[in-house]
Amino acid sequence: MNKYILYKLKMEEKKILNGKNIANEILKSLDSQIVYYKNLGENIGLKIILIGENTASLIYTERKIKVANSIGIDAKLIKLSENTTFQEIKIIIDELNLDKDTHGIIVQLPLPKTLNAIDICNLIHYKKDIDGLSFENAGKLQLGFRGEYFHKPCTPSGCIYLLEKYNIDLQGKKCLIINRSNIVGKPLFHLLIEKNAFVQIAHSKVKNLNDVILDSDVIFSATGNNNFITRDMIKNDAILIDIGITKNIDGKICGDINFHSCFDKASFITPVPGGIGPMTIAFLMQNIVNVKKYFGNNL
Amino acid sequence: MNKYILYKLKMEEKKILNGKNIANEILKSLDSQIVYYKNLGENIGLKIILIGENTASLIYTERKIKVANSIGIDAKLIKLSENTTFQEIKIIIDELNLDKDTHGIIVQLPLPKTLNAIDICNLIHYKKDIDGLSFENAGKLQLGFRGEYFHKPCTPSGCIYLLEKYNIDLQGKKCLIINRSNIVGKPLFHLLIEKNAFVQIAHSKVKNLNDVILDSDVIFSATGNNNFITRDMIKNDAILIDIGITKNIDGKICGDINFHSCFDKASFITPVPGGIGPMTIAFLMQNIVNVKKYFGNNL
Repeated sequence: MNKYILYKLKMEEKKILNGKNIANEILKSLDSQIVYYKNLGENIGLKIILIGENTASLIYTERKIKVANSIGIDAKLIKLSENTTFQEIKIIIDELNLDKDTHGIIVQLPLPKTLNAIDICNLIHYKKDIDGLSFENAGKLQLGFRGEYFHKPCTPSGCIYLLEKYNIDLQGKKCLIINRSNIVGKPLFHLLIEKNAFVQIAHSKVKNLNDVILDSDVIFSATGNNNFITRDMIKNDAILIDIGITKNIDGKICGDINFHSCFDKASFITPVPGGIGPMTIAFLMQNIVNVKKYFGNNL
Repeated sequence: MNKYILYKLKMEEKKILNGKNIANEILKSLDSQIVYYKNLGENIGLKIILIGENTASLIYTERKIKVANSIGIDAKLIKLSENTTFQEIKIIIDELNLDKDTHGIIVQLPLPKTLNAIDICNLIHYKKDIDGLSFENAGKLQLGFRGEYFHKPCTPSGCIYLLEKYNIDLQGKKCLIINRSNIVGKPLFHLLIEKNAFVQIAHSKVKNLNDVILDSDVIFSATGNNNFITRDMIKNDAILIDIGITKNIDGKICGDINFHSCFDKASFITPVPGGIGPMTIAFLMQNIVNVKKYFGNNL
């Protein structure tokens, strides 16, 4: 290969925000922390509650359990039938809240329609609420609490950390979040505000979304519409953070952003897979280990 | 006056979002609810804690107490010296939390620099936290909790209610909030997202703020820079919600928005005084009465 092509490849590589690498660094650091606890004879436990039959949810939970176990976390799936009632779930979560061997608790979303996700996630004790969906943790994030450690949702934390790792300063930048969920859009909004970004939140009811996208410096997209953001829709040097993950008709994993069409025009871009997905998992693992680290003797 | 002038005056009147009138309606309805409780021999109590010497804060607290007393709420000021410690404040708030005759507790902000507002506001029991600044209440707002009544910050609630009263639909509208505080900008963001608005939050670190203002359908401004938004800065038919309140060099009360210069161009506009100010006070009173209404037997 000639020098120019090598240089170009190197430059192009710099553009890609490599979530997989950064996530692996985090997991490696966690691994050694977990070894430290194991040497003291102490385990770290994770329980994931999966309610009802949902193929995608089952895949996600199995992935979380696999990664957790791979770094020495004792992760277990609790499968409940679709007809489980709020009261039955409350009894299980209350028990896990008191269990000294359970450090993190996840209720896998979405839930069957008969159950209310907000109420159920808030049953989890805030110290074990590693998804950051209890009132206590959400409130602390919103108000900018600076005291004792608390859990923040993993996907937004992963996005911010990835940008930090690549020294991308968000101050004053026009950021667009296309998502307004409790687990992605809203907490990401609060993290971006803390970074002094100019934040916009769009969703399905927004008119002229294309104009807004074209005008944004940084785009965080989590719509699940595969490849919907294309080259003509973004400004020069846009920073593209792809939080969407779906399969296209050929069964290939895709993000919201058409990577190949946008690559040249963007200044930075996350791939799918290998971008925000691994960052989310890594932050989830970090949150679990943080329970041990910050609340270990006080669970 | 000829017909045309009368018509024009009537049209112009329709433009003004008359917070004072709407606030008075709310206060009147509260008044009759309070009379109902009084007839049962039950009082409603408010305590405002004011720490240190701050002329503006003293004026605000006195205004709140005056309005509260005028509708039959038993409101009292607790004045503490600038050197009061967190522990001393905690003892006072803990006592008020347990006091059956105290329904609402306010810690007047800003606090002396030695004290942390987030930590202190969170000492207030969420049922009595009528400013909506405890983790519990902020978290419920952020997550879109739909269960038991909870307190939301009064200024954002007042803005939304005023717009509703004038049948102004926010769905899909490009809304700009110029403020990112815990008591105004952030909760207003959550209320607007619930209304399906396209929400943007700006602050002092945002570049090209003027471009953003010019491009917005609805502007909520709470900067305290008097009259800084002028006719040339807004789009035709913009909706202007003025949350700023300051005095100009002549001692005249002003908002962020230059009312006279913007009036013709805007489709709706709130005056200062007589707009969001009275709405805030009315919602504060409503929150206090709601403590009695929703938690009365369970304080």
